[in-house]
Amino acid sequence: MSSERLIYLPLGGAGEIGMNAYVYGYGPVDAERFILVDLGVTFPDMDGSPGVDLILPDMTWLKERADRLDAIFITHAHEDHVGAVAHFYNALGAPVYARAFTANIARRKMAEHNHPEDAVQTVGAWPEQVQAGPFRVGFLPISHSIPESAGLVIDSPDGRVIHSGDFKLDETPGVGEPFDEALWRDVSKQGVRALICDSTNVFAPHPGRSEADVGPEIEKLVAGATGMVVATTFASNVARVKTLAEAGERAGRSIVLLGRAMRRMIEAAIETGVLADFPRVVSPEDAASIPRENLLLLVTGSQGERRAASAQLARGKYMGLEIKEGDLFLFSSKTIPGNERGVIRIINQFSEKGVDVVDDSSGLYHVSGHANRPDLERLQRIVKPQIVIPMHGEHRHLREHVKLSEANGFQAIVAVNGMMIDLSGNAPSVAEYIETGRTYLDGSMQIGALDGIVRDRIRMALNGHVVVTVILDEADEPLGDPWCDLKGLAETGKSKAPLVDVLEEDLGQFMMRAGEKTLRDDDALEEALRRIVRQTSQSEIGKKPEVTVVVSRMR
Amino acid sequence: MSSERLIYLPLGGAGEIGMNAYVYGYGPVDAERFILVDLGVTFPDMDGSPGVDLILPDMTWLKERADRLDAIFITHAHEDHVGAVAHFYNALGAPVYARAFTANIARRKMAEHNHPEDAVQTVGAWPEQVQAGPFRVGFLPISHSIPESAGLVIDSPDGRVIHSGDFKLDETPGVGEPFDEALWRDVSKQGVRALICDSTNVFAPHPGRSEADVGPEIEKLVAGATGMVVATTFASNVARVKTLAEAGERAGRSIVLLGRAMRRMIEAAIETGVLADFPRVVSPEDAASIPRENLLLLVTGSQGERRAASAQLARGKYMGLEIKEGDLFLFSSKTIPGNERGVIRIINQFSEKGVDVVDDSSGLYHVSGHANRPDLERLQRIVKPQIVIPMHGEHRHLREHVKLSEANGFQAIVAVNGMMIDLSGNAPSVAEYIETGRTYLDGSMQIGALDGIVRDRIRMALNGHVVVTVILDEADEPLGDPWCDLKGLAETGKSKAPLVDVLEEDLGQFMMRAGEKTLRDDDALEEALRRIVRQTSQSEIGKKPEVTVVVSRMR
Repeated sequence: MSSERLIYLPLGGAGEIGMNAYVYGYGPVDAERFILVDLGVTFPDMDGSPGVDLILPDMTWLKERADRLDAIFITHAHEDHVGAVAHFYNALGAPVYARAFTANIARRKMAEHNHPEDAVQTVGAWPEQVQAGPFRVGFLPISHSIPESAGLVIDSPDGRVIHSGDFKLDETPGVGEPFDEALWRDVSKQGVRALICDSTNVFAPHPGRSEADVGPEIEKLVAGATGMVVATTFASNVARVKTLAEAGERAGRSIVLLGRAMRRMIEAAIETGVLADFPRVVSPEDAASIPRENLLLLVTGSQGERRAASAQLARGKYMGLEIKEGDLFLFSSKTIPGNERGVIRIINQFSEKGVDVVDDSSGLYHVSGHANRPDLERLQRIVKPQIVIPMHGEHRHLREHVKLSEANGFQAIVAVNGMMIDLSGNAPSVAEYIETGRTYLDGSMQIGALDGIVRDRIRMALNGHVVVTVILDEADEPLGDPWCDLKGLAETGKSKAPLVDVLEEDLGQFMMRAGEKTLRDDDALEEALRRIVRQTSQSEIGKKPEVTVVVSRMR
Repeated sequence: MSSERLIYLPLGGAGEIGMNAYVYGYGPVDAERFILVDLGVTFPDMDGSPGVDLILPDMTWLKERADRLDAIFITHAHEDHVGAVAHFYNALGAPVYARAFTANIARRKMAEHNHPEDAVQTVGAWPEQVQAGPFRVGFLPISHSIPESAGLVIDSPDGRVIHSGDFKLDETPGVGEPFDEALWRDVSKQGVRALICDSTNVFAPHPGRSEADVGPEIEKLVAGATGMVVATTFASNVARVKTLAEAGERAGRSIVLLGRAMRRMIEAAIETGVLADFPRVVSPEDAASIPRENLLLLVTGSQGERRAASAQLARGKYMGLEIKEGDLFLFSSKTIPGNERGVIRIINQFSEKGVDVVDDSSGLYHVSGHANRPDLERLQRIVKPQIVIPMHGEHRHLREHVKLSEANGFQAIVAVNGMMIDLSGNAPSVAEYIETGRTYLDGSMQIGALDGIVRDRIRMALNGHVVVTVILDEADEPLGDPWCDLKGLAETGKSKAPLVDVLEEDLGQFMMRAGEKTLRDDDALEEALRRIVRQTSQSEIGKKPEVTVVVSRMR
């Protein structure tokens, strides 16, 4: 038995949907050479990460081994796969490889961080391969909801691994390569040690539908509309954007792209040659002089994001354009769990304006970009791997995908973030547990999710914040009474007196009684004052606030 | 034309789903006598109302006219209809009328607030009527997802109004009265001026399914389970709780009720005679000695609420009981939009424990309690009102319901909270716009949603909080340097020095340069210090925090 091993280690994306980051390694124990597949972000929310700008995977483990990292491969240009690539460029230092469209997007990110253009290298599709340490890696085209998505063929001395990337089995994807079963079969025929596979739609029981299915429905809808039509979808879903634009063009409408991401994606797709024959676009300024029944706006904000074009139109004008009674708004998208409130808010705002909203509840105007359960089974039959390891899923998805794989006769294992899996033996086994987590981009700083900083913000949001200031003279005697500043708390409580007065009264009483020992000891004094504030607040307003005590001594 | 008028005024529940509160009035303009239908709550969320305990309708308008309020009628015992009844008991002072089960729940709420038992009066079903000022009001039984839901027949000198309450048309509801078409037809035959109608499911295209449909499916599922079965639903859905318990009993399982709401609802249903033959229940203590394959737990927390029994089981033990690999967890419920994250969190926690989770994605184990689109049309055909006014819906629901009604030949109008509708003329018209809003129960205090208190908490959550303290002597000269306390902010910024040091340095520099005029003027000084903190923070960490400046003067 060799002392070298082939390992798989998810640092993000396994046990969650978001911030994908998967390490593969080969070599002697603790001296493996690594490659990293994808480096994405997750989006924060008010519940768990208020005020945070972006959530990145905690890359500490890999940073400490950056000298052993030979390359980073990006499967496709969705934010949860490419979004963190510029944030860790300095710390990881490895070259980034991607296909042309993905590389175009990645380079824009690098440029925003003033990293060099050549940090990202363009690789052609399979059979082209990149040598990276002990690995040879090729990009195997596969259909998804963005151009040029790719699975990775990862050849190691211990055999071939296929990393599916995000995918669906679509033979008519509109833009980009159709799923090529013969190619995947051909790549797999030499034997595949492990298939690391997208799990997103493992609970969807029916075979996935093709992008081509939505075209005729959208065309019918747009053809029947009498006012302005406004449609939203993920900007990166270039095929859908094209379908929507073509439906508009056929109905004699001029096309307007609204929102930075929408324009940037179409630009990247045209620059890299993945998108041809996109209908002519007019500027928002020119659109102002076109009758509204001859306009189709394609806008960002399918998830109800407050600053996106959709939400701005829902609130009022955007770029001089206004949505009105008799217009139609189409969500050619699904709402990601957690975003329902934002989406519903803008639907109601449109309703108040008399705008008809068509969402995906009919199932006619959107198809998923991920393989459904029968599609996952079909891919397994094509690839015939020795082992299936589900990725890109919450725990429930990974577990279900393992059960499905085992039912079909494949070895499989649930591997969540931090579980290093040894793929060298006959059966997959857990080699090690690595500490993983999340890093917050907060303003311009990266902070640890467990640093307590965001926890303090959440506590202030739940409980309010009281600041107590006391001044003591050189002899540790109070100089005047303590005073309080309140933020986020009811102004008056049960006693009908201002809460601040009641608190200051109670704190003043305490200071008068307090012994020398307490007055000399900052910690004891702070603790005592904090306790009084919390007790008094509880009895006055029924809440225990966060308390900051500032003790200043005249020395 | 009479100088008296019949009015309808929603103060909550119209333009939102939640905190229902509908006023009806009759009499001369500005001297109408009122009744209030329902007085419910809405639940807060971290996005918009962090730390808030409950959201109540703003009842200011009605409080100021409490002397003209003759009665409060509660249609059914859901929290969004009865939840605020005790909170406004003192301010409104009117007698509360409800059917027995609803009254039982309302009295428990009154008792928690130390209000008298007889604040709530029990009324029998139609044809019993209550005289309240110029109105005679009767409770017309209708099926819903809670026992003894009722529509209200409101007779006024200007004719009969029917307020549907929440309802579905279920001829086999399991517990409670089946929908009685003949009765509704009979009540309507004298002519109905207006039908004020539930709009929740106006977008659901198919006729609603009966409660009786889920029984056989649940029974099959429970019969096939090999480990412990844990099922959740809304505790108030007594019919469903009974169905679940009976499925357990038939499979030879002992039934355990977990969660305060679950026990309280069953207790109320038994006390008031709406529930008979409920299977025998064992205590959690006794359950410990029963083999797990012979147990069925009925638990609270269908919406993933953190403190409910479901979430506690997902995290570990609850009341000595533990869920384990091989057990089954059933959501016999739907997830209310906005609660997805919490529900998904506990599903994943169960997955980590090896528990199989069955949710409603199959549509087999839950039916809605609200009338679908064809059911709304059916009720309109039965009641044949002169006017339809949709209620219990967001704007999009109300608007769609109006369109549906008009398509079927009825007059209809979108009336959102605060729109006083005059029902006396031939067509409904807006008589007045009343200021409405939300009141927060925050700890033990009621605060206005627009008071700025919660807004400050949200800002601290997004931006962090810096407190600056400066002390000035009798001559308005700084006594030492200003100092800062930070909460919820990164500790070090771009310069690698602690943020607090950089801030104090910049503030100290300013104080040295500051002129006498600034130092004498609290407002100017505070504003200047605040600006420095925000600018320095922005350049150090890329965030502008909330700032509190405490200026203390030794006088």
